[in-house]
Amino acid sequence: MSVILLTPDELTNSSETRLSLEDLFRKEFMIHNPEARWINDSDVVYKNGNGHVIKLNVETNVTTLLLENTTFVTFKASRHSVSPDLRFVLLAYDVKQVYHYSYTASYVIYNIHTREVWELNPPEVEDSILQYAAWGVQGQQLIYIFENNIYYQPDVKSSSLRLTSSGKEGIIFNGIADWLYEEELLHSHIAHWWSPDGERLAFLMINDSLVPNMVIPRFTGGLYPKAKQYPYPKAGQVNPTVKLYVVNLYGPTHTLELMPPDSFKSREYYITMVKWVSNTKTVVRWLNRPQNISILTVCETTTGACSKKYEMTSDVWLSKQNEEPVFSKDGSKFFMTVPVKQGGRGEFHHIAMFIVQPKSEQISVRHLTSGNWEVIKILAYDESTQKIYFLSTETSPRGRQLHSASTDGLLNRQCLSCNFMKDQCTYFSAKFSPTNQHFLLHCKGPGVPVVSVHNINNPSKFYILESNSLLKEVIMKKKITKTEIKMLHIEDYELRLQLSFPKDFSDRNQYAVLLLIDEAPGSQLVTDKFHIDWDSVLVDSDNVIVARFDGRGSGFQGLKILQEVHHSLGSVEVKDQITAVKSLLKQPFVDPKRLSIFGKGYGGYIASMILKSDERFFKCGSIVAPITDMKLYASAFAERYLGLPSKEESTYQASSVLHNIHSLKEENLLIIHGTADTKVHFQHSAELIKHLIKAGVNYTMQVYPDEGHNIVSEKSKYHLYSTILRFFSDCLKEEVPVLPQEPEEDE
Amino acid sequence: MSVILLTPDELTNSSETRLSLEDLFRKEFMIHNPEARWINDSDVVYKNGNGHVIKLNVETNVTTLLLENTTFVTFKASRHSVSPDLRFVLLAYDVKQVYHYSYTASYVIYNIHTREVWELNPPEVEDSILQYAAWGVQGQQLIYIFENNIYYQPDVKSSSLRLTSSGKEGIIFNGIADWLYEEELLHSHIAHWWSPDGERLAFLMINDSLVPNMVIPRFTGGLYPKAKQYPYPKAGQVNPTVKLYVVNLYGPTHTLELMPPDSFKSREYYITMVKWVSNTKTVVRWLNRPQNISILTVCETTTGACSKKYEMTSDVWLSKQNEEPVFSKDGSKFFMTVPVKQGGRGEFHHIAMFIVQPKSEQISVRHLTSGNWEVIKILAYDESTQKIYFLSTETSPRGRQLHSASTDGLLNRQCLSCNFMKDQCTYFSAKFSPTNQHFLLHCKGPGVPVVSVHNINNPSKFYILESNSLLKEVIMKKKITKTEIKMLHIEDYELRLQLSFPKDFSDRNQYAVLLLIDEAPGSQLVTDKFHIDWDSVLVDSDNVIVARFDGRGSGFQGLKILQEVHHSLGSVEVKDQITAVKSLLKQPFVDPKRLSIFGKGYGGYIASMILKSDERFFKCGSIVAPITDMKLYASAFAERYLGLPSKEESTYQASSVLHNIHSLKEENLLIIHGTADTKVHFQHSAELIKHLIKAGVNYTMQVYPDEGHNIVSEKSKYHLYSTILRFFSDCLKEEVPVLPQEPEEDE
Repeated sequence: MSVILLTPDELTNSSETRLSLEDLFRKEFMIHNPEARWINDSDVVYKNGNGHVIKLNVETNVTTLLLENTTFVTFKASRHSVSPDLRFVLLAYDVKQVYHYSYTASYVIYNIHTREVWELNPPEVEDSILQYAAWGVQGQQLIYIFENNIYYQPDVKSSSLRLTSSGKEGIIFNGIADWLYEEELLHSHIAHWWSPDGERLAFLMINDSLVPNMVIPRFTGGLYPKAKQYPYPKAGQVNPTVKLYVVNLYGPTHTLELMPPDSFKSREYYITMVKWVSNTKTVVRWLNRPQNISILTVCETTTGACSKKYEMTSDVWLSKQNEEPVFSKDGSKFFMTVPVKQGGRGEFHHIAMFIVQPKSEQISVRHLTSGNWEVIKILAYDESTQKIYFLSTETSPRGRQLHSASTDGLLNRQCLSCNFMKDQCTYFSAKFSPTNQHFLLHCKGPGVPVVSVHNINNPSKFYILESNSLLKEVIMKKKITKTEIKMLHIEDYELRLQLSFPKDFSDRNQYAVLLLIDEAPGSQLVTDKFHIDWDSVLVDSDNVIVARFDGRGSGFQGLKILQEVHHSLGSVEVKDQITAVKSLLKQPFVDPKRLSIFGKGYGGYIASMILKSDERFFKCGSIVAPITDMKLYASAFAERYLGLPSKEESTYQASSVLHNIHSLKEENLLIIHGTADTKVHFQHSAELIKHLIKAGVNYTMQVYPDEGHNIVSEKSKYHLYSTILRFFSDCLKEEVPVLPQEPEEDE
Repeated sequence: MSVILLTPDELTNSSETRLSLEDLFRKEFMIHNPEARWINDSDVVYKNGNGHVIKLNVETNVTTLLLENTTFVTFKASRHSVSPDLRFVLLAYDVKQVYHYSYTASYVIYNIHTREVWELNPPEVEDSILQYAAWGVQGQQLIYIFENNIYYQPDVKSSSLRLTSSGKEGIIFNGIADWLYEEELLHSHIAHWWSPDGERLAFLMINDSLVPNMVIPRFTGGLYPKAKQYPYPKAGQVNPTVKLYVVNLYGPTHTLELMPPDSFKSREYYITMVKWVSNTKTVVRWLNRPQNISILTVCETTTGACSKKYEMTSDVWLSKQNEEPVFSKDGSKFFMTVPVKQGGRGEFHHIAMFIVQPKSEQISVRHLTSGNWEVIKILAYDESTQKIYFLSTETSPRGRQLHSASTDGLLNRQCLSCNFMKDQCTYFSAKFSPTNQHFLLHCKGPGVPVVSVHNINNPSKFYILESNSLLKEVIMKKKITKTEIKMLHIEDYELRLQLSFPKDFSDRNQYAVLLLIDEAPGSQLVTDKFHIDWDSVLVDSDNVIVARFDGRGSGFQGLKILQEVHHSLGSVEVKDQITAVKSLLKQPFVDPKRLSIFGKGYGGYIASMILKSDERFFKCGSIVAPITDMKLYASAFAERYLGLPSKEESTYQASSVLHNIHSLKEENLLIIHGTADTKVHFQHSAELIKHLIKAGVNYTMQVYPDEGHNIVSEKSKYHLYSTILRFFSDCLKEEVPVLPQEPEEDE
C-alpha cells in the first residue's frame, strides 16, 4: 500500500506577514503601560515609551522631564517612584520577585535637582535588601519594611524610626502580607495604609507561627543549593491570625489595635480591606473563615473603637471582599456595590448608597443602579455635583465603560467613555484626580491600549499619554485575527463563546481548534481586552481556531453564574466547557479530529478534569502548573468553593484530578511546571505524574528548574512558548489524506 | 509536489516471536539468582526458583527444605538469612532502599523447627526500623545497627549489648557506611567485619560532622512532604574522617583503635579494605585522598599495633583498592594482584605471592602469573596442595574463567571451568567452601545463567542448583539476537566493538544503530555475560543494531587502557566512541542518518560530551541521570580522575557538559532523571536544562518524582523503559523514501 502525502502550499511570501513566536519578543510588540498616577490634583507622573519619567500638568498640558531613561541604566534600577513633593525619586535595583506581587530590592534615593544619591538602609545595616520601600503621602515621608518590621522616615535625610519590633522572618509579618494574604486575600503584598494627612499608618500584623511550612527545593546555582520554606496553609490547615493596628507618626509614636467585631472575637477571620475615610477614621472589612459572613466596620483610630456599618451573610461564599467603599467627606454617606436581584436572572452587583442617620446612627440604603449588568468598580463621588463615577458592563459584559450617575432624583446615568475612540476602545479602567476634576482613562482594548487624560467637565477633550502607535503599526501589518462571539444557552444562561479565526479563514475548510481554559474561577476570558500572546501565533501561523468560553463559574455576569460552582468546583465548569465543545463540533469548519485544550493553574485543573471525563474529544492537551488536588492548594481558595476538607472529604475527593486517574486516557498530554512554584506547588504535578505512571497513562513533560508559577525570564519564557507551540503545532497539523488505491487486480 | 510514503510490510505473524517490552516484565523472563552461599564446608543454602530456601549437602547431594516460600508471604518478608547453626532465619520486612546497597527494614527471628517468631528490637524500642541486621559467624550470634550504633546479641534469646554510643544520624556512622563509603569506596553498606571465631568485630567509625549536606526534596506522599538531607562530599569538599576499631565480644567488651600508618597520620585518607586473616589479626588497606598512595598493614587487634606490609605509589590513581589479599593460615604468605609490566602493552594485574621472612619480617615477592591478560579475583589458597584459585581473562577479556595455579615449581596453570557447559558458559564467578574442597560455580553467560556445585578434586562432576530452564525455553522461542565482535585499532590498542543484530539481519539492508555507553569508567560493556533488557527489545522489535564499544578508560584489559582517562575524563572516551562510530559508518549495513546514543550516570555524561563534540553523527540521544559537571559529583570519584578542583579548575571546567553548552545542538535529546537521586543529584539535569534553555537548545524530558538513581518500582520501570523505547523507535524509524516525480511538463 502506498500513501500520497501532499505538502501544503508554500507560503513563502505571505509568511512574512504572519505572527511568529520571535515577534512576541520584539520590542515593537510590547504593550507599553505608562503607569500613570496622580501626584496632586493637576499633575500626573508617568513613564513614556522611551523610558523617561515625565510630569504632565493636566491644566496646561505642559510636560516636564523628571528623570531621564539613562538614570535607570546608571543605577541598574528597574522600578521608580517620585516623592509627593516631586523632588526625589526612589529607585529600586536588584529586584527579585518573591510571590505574585511581592519582591525584594535594594533602594537609592535620587535628588532630581542635585542628582545627589544615597542608599536607603535601616539604622546600622549596610547594603540592605528591603521587602518594601515607598514614599508616604506627604512631602518626603518614607516607609520601608525590613525583616518583617516597618520603618518610617519623616524625610529623606532624617533617621529611621522602627515602628514595629515583633517581625520575624516566616513567622510574624508587619505591614506586609504573608503568602496567603498576598495571593488569596489582599491581592497585594502591601498590608499597610496611610491616613490622608500622613499622620497615621494602619497596618496588619499577620502571625504565621502555627501555619505549616511548605518546602521549596532549589536545584541550581551552587554546589549545595538550599531549600526554602515559607508558611502556606493548605485546605483545612491552621491559618495565620491577623491583627489590625494604627500607629500615629507625629509626636510620640503610639500604637493602637483596632478590634474585630464582637461576633468574630472567638472565631477565625480574615481582614480583606482597610481604607482611610478621614484623617482619623478607617473602614475595615472582616470576613469569617468560611467566607460567608462579612462585617464592615468604621473604626475611630484615636480610640480603637469600631462600629459595625454593614453585615452580609450568604449560603455561598461572599465575593468582592476587597472592594473599597467610597465615603463622602463628612462620612454621612458611603457607596458600595451590593448584590441586587434582577428577576429570574438572579443577583447582580449594583451601587447602593448608605446614608447614616445623624443621630440614631441608623443606616438607610438607596439603590442607585439596577439591571442585568454589573457595576465593576466605584471610582469617585463628587460632593459638589453629587455624582458617582464607576465602571460597569452595562453596554456589554465583555467591555468596561466609565459612567456617572446622579445620587439623587432620577439617578440619571451617563456614559463618559462610550464615545472615546469608539472603534478601538470598549474596555476601560480609570483613575480620578484627588478632587475628581480630571481622570486618567486607560483603554485596554479591543484595539491597542491607549492612555489619556480627560477633564470631567469636558470628557471629549483629552490628552494622550500613550497610544502604543508602534505596536498598532506592526499589528496592522500582520493583519490581526478576526474574532467572533457565539451565544450558547445552558440552563437559562446566555454564555459567550469566542472564536479567533486565522486570517485566511474560509468556512469551506476544516480547522483545528484549541480551547483555552481560564486561570481562575470568577474571572472572564471573553472580553474586549487587547490580547497578543503565544495563542495568537498558533492562530496566525498554524491556522488553528482558538476558542474561549465563559461558562458557569465565570465572573462579571451576575452572581448566579458565578456561584454555580459552590461545592461543585471542577464539575459544572467541566460540563459547560464540554457543551461548548459539542456546539463547536456542529460547525462545518471544525475538524472533529483536531481538537486540543490548554489551561494553567486552575485552568490546568479544569483542563485535566475535562480530559478525565467520559467524552473523548481532544487529540491533545497541555496543562501548566496545574492544581491537581484542592487539598494541596491554599486554604482561603479551596475552602471558599469546597468548604473545610474535614467536613467535605468526599467533595474534595470528587474534585481531585488524582481520583480515578485511569479515566485520563489522553495519549498526548504535556505537563509543564516550574519546580519553585510557590503558588501551585510542583507537588501537584509530581502527584499527577506518579498517578499517571501507576495507571500506565502516557504523557510528556517539561520541567523548569527553580522557576516559579509565572516563568518570567525571557529565555525561559521563549522556551516555554516554543515548547507549547511545537506541541500544539505537531499535534494539530493536518492529517495526511489517504487516497484510496485502485483495487488489486487479483482481488 | 507530492511524496510517496511506503508503509513497511506488515509482520503480523512473525511479530509474535519478537521480544516485547511486556515480555521483560513476565516472570519467565526473570533471571533467577539462587543467592547460594556456604554455611559450612559441606552445606550450601540457597533459594530455589519456587522461592523455597533449601540446604544442600554437597557430599551426599541430599537437599533439605529449610523454609517454605509461604513463610515469606506470611511475614511479608523480602529478604532472609539462615543462622550459622541452621536453626533460625532472620526475615526482613518493610524493606526500603536507602542508597545503592543499603536499606532499612524491620526484622523477625523465625525458629525453623518450632515456627516460633519474635521481633528483633533494640532494648526498650518497639517496632524498630534497623539499618542492618545479620547473623554473626558462630551459632546464633546476631548483630544489628540502629541509629548508627552497633548492637550485639550472643544468641537469639539473650538481651542486646550496645557496642557503640557515638552514633548520630547523618553525623557519626558506626559499622555502617555513609553515602561516600557505600557508593564510592567500599561498594557495600557494611562497614564491620567478624573475626573467624566470632570473638571480635572490626568496624569503621565514619565521622561526617564537617561534610556538607545535600538536600533531597520530596514532592509526593503528603500535604507537606519533608525534604531529606545527608552528608555528600562533592569534589574538593570536606571528606568524612574514618577510624577503625576492634571490639572483643567475649568477656568484658573492650574497644581498641587500629592506627593508620605513620605517614598517613596527618593526612586525609580512606580505609578501602578490612579483612581478618586470623582470629586476632586483620589486614587493612589505607589510601590517601588523592588515591595514589596505598598502604597495606597487618594489625594485631589485641594491641592495636599495625605494621606495614606493602606500599604502592603511582602517578595516576590506584585501582583495585577493595581487593582482599588471601593469607596462608600461619600468615607467612599472602597473595594479592599487583600491576606487572607486559612489554609495550603496559601493566596487567597478576598474582604476586608475598613471603614474610620469619625473623627479619622482610617480605619477598614472587610473581605467579603473567601475560597480556588480567587476574580478576583470587578466590582461595589451598595449603595442602599449595594451589591458588582465581578468576582471569586469560581465555578472553570478555570472559571470566576459573583457574588454579601452583605456587611453586613451574607455577602450572589449569582451567577448571573451561570445559563446563562450553557452548553456554564462558563468564564465571565462583565461591569456595571454607576448606576449599568444593566450589559454587556461577555461569553468567553467554547462555542463560547456571549455578552449580563442584568438587575440587573432580570439577567435571557437578550438581546444578539453578539452570534457569524456563528462561532458556522462552529465549529459544524468541530466537536470540546474534552478536558480533569487531576489533578496532586505536593508538596501539586493540579495542572491542560489539554489535547486536536483529534476527532477520541482512547486510544488503540498512539499519539504524543505537550506541550504548558504559555506566562507569574502568568497567566493561563488551562481555560474554547474558543480557536481556530494553535494548534487546529495540534490536528485536525495531530492527535496530545495538553497538557497545570498550574504548580507553574501560577495564580488565590492562592498566594502560584503564588509566588513559587520568586527568582527561570525558575526552579520550569521547574520541574513542567517535572512532567507533566512524568505523560503523563504513559498514554498508549502517544507515548513516539513523544513529542514536544512550547513556546513564557517567554514561549519560559521556553521551552528552559526544553530542557536544564537533562531529554530528546522531539523530537522537537519551541520557538518564547524567553527571553534567564533575564538581557536583562525589569527591572520591571526581578527584580520582581529575584531582582536587582547587588545583585543577580548568580540568574540571573542560570536563563539564555545561561548559560551551551551545555546541550541544542536538534537536532530539531526551533527558531522564529521578528527583530523589542520591547518587547523581537531580541538580545535574537541572543545571543542564537551565543551560540548554539559555542557549536555546531543544530537548524533551521525563522526570520521575521522588525516584532514585535506579528506578526500581515495576510500574515506574515499565514507564521508563516504554519512554526510552518509544523515543528511540520514533527517532530511528525508517525515513519515508521520496520518489522523484516526473518532471513537470511545462519545464
